[in-house]
Amino acid sequence: MYTAKGAKTWFIPDGYIPEKSSGELTSHESVCVLNTSGAAARLRFTIYFEDRDPLAGIEVAVPGRRTMHIRTSSLGRDGMSIPVGVPYAIEVESDIPVIVQYSRLDATQSENALMSVMAYPLH
Amino acid sequence: MYTAKGAKTWFIPDGYIPEKSSGELTSHESVCVLNTSGAAARLRFTIYFEDRDPLAGIEVAVPGRRTMHIRTSSLGRDGMSIPVGVPYAIEVESDIPVIVQYSRLDATQSENALMSVMAYPLH
Amino acid sequence: MYTAKGAKTWFIPDGYIPEKSSGELTSHESVCVLNTSGAAARLRFTIYFEDRDPLAGIEVAVPGRRTMHIRTSSLGRDGMSIPVGVPYAIEVESDIPVIVQYSRLDATQSENALMSVMAYPLH
Amino acid sequence: MYTAKGAKTWFIPDGYIPEKSSGELTSHESVCVLNTSGAAARLRFTIYFEDRDPLAGIEVAVPGRRTMHIRTSSLGRDGMSIPVGVPYAIEVESDIPVIVQYSRLDATQSENALMSVMAYPLH
Repeated sequence: MYTAKGAKTWFIPDGYIPEKSSGELTSHESVCVLNTSGAAARLRFTIYFEDRDPLAGIEVAVPGRRTMHIRTSSLGRDGMSIPVGVPYAIEVESDIPVIVQYSRLDATQSENALMSVMAYPLH
Repeated sequence: MYTAKGAKTWFIPDGYIPEKSSGELTSHESVCVLNTSGAAARLRFTIYFEDRDPLAGIEVAVPGRRTMHIRTSSLGRDGMSIPVGVPYAIEVESDIPVIVQYSRLDATQSENALMSVMAYPLH
Repeated sequence: MYTAKGAKTWFIPDGYIPEKSSGELTSHESVCVLNTSGAAARLRFTIYFEDRDPLAGIEVAVPGRRTMHIRTSSLGRDGMSIPVGVPYAIEVESDIPVIVQYSRLDATQSENALMSVMAYPLH
Repeated sequence: MYTAKGAKTWFIPDGYIPEKSSGELTSHESVCVLNTSGAAARLRFTIYFEDRDPLAGIEVAVPGRRTMHIRTSSLGRDGMSIPVGVPYAIEVESDIPVIVQYSRLDATQSENALMSVMAYPLH
């Protein structure tokens, strides 16, 4: 038996998909999820904006004993996705505990810049 | 009903607004706030310095179900703002729980550098 | 007597060894461990992937009153190691409390990019 | 009355002073301390290494209602300081609660790289 570890709700206030890329790498963000349990974790993402209602109900499944590094550009529902160049925030809810980290590669300039934070867990 | 999540007090010891920018992007810091509740959050910022008394009582409102990515250069009161090129620290107090992340883009050189931390919550 | 401080289990969801290096520095990741106790800490690493079963049972000892900055490229067992260019995640279990931080230097471009997070502790 | 907030003991496992600098900025690390109380905080630093005994008993005072961004290259005792180009770790103990963040600017290449973490608090 493998135990589910971590927390069920995580927050990332600073979401931003850079508009431009240059050089060898492409600007992107990843929401990196680790599911230590033996069963799949069912995630629901809510995307918050500065000037409009949240985009809720985006579902992603992470298999048991696996990690998944989810590109934020892949998140969407009913043809709606996260626009580039717009400040936003992320809430991740899971049916079982998981661990969530957020990283951004900014390749606006030809030399890339990196940032990463552990998401903030709700206890 | 949407619940307010996070904490009411957050700290960022390493504040610094770079003096210079070059290349395509402008050096800046953002205090990124997520308010998951249905009502506005009223924030009060206190700015601490190395060599003078704090600048207290800067107020910002973050609407319910919204994020706000606040440029530190926009923070001020009575004509006082945060000087560039000076080490400082930030305390954020909110009347309801919110989540706070801090990010800095340093574009002193033409290629930018990024850093980000989840602010430290008071429990 | 020196006390063991920190936690016994730590997680890093965003592991990635860049495939390329250029310029003066080499792309690498470090799992930085601090053992404040007077006795050695016995660590066991489990490496999680997106598309295959975990690589478990990698053992590393950190002497008492010492830090060790462990290159992830050095982690392996029975001839298996962490492949480059593949998203993965790390679980570190220790027999006594330690403190764990993760950092990555990406030198894909000639100018390097840095990111660092405190690993997420299980309490 | 101003309350002391945060924790009395903090850890930073990944310390490293880059050997080189080029371009406009100098490679350095900062241990950024915020003291929200009305009285001075008396800090004691212990520096841990990979291959030798710790360097303990380095004292720094942070005045009340102030932040101090301490360069690690300034830390020392009895003529001993932290060598450049060597992996190390930091323990900060304070007589009253403070908040501690760690940041590194790496200017080995002419374009700088930044990383920052909130130090890990002992509760």
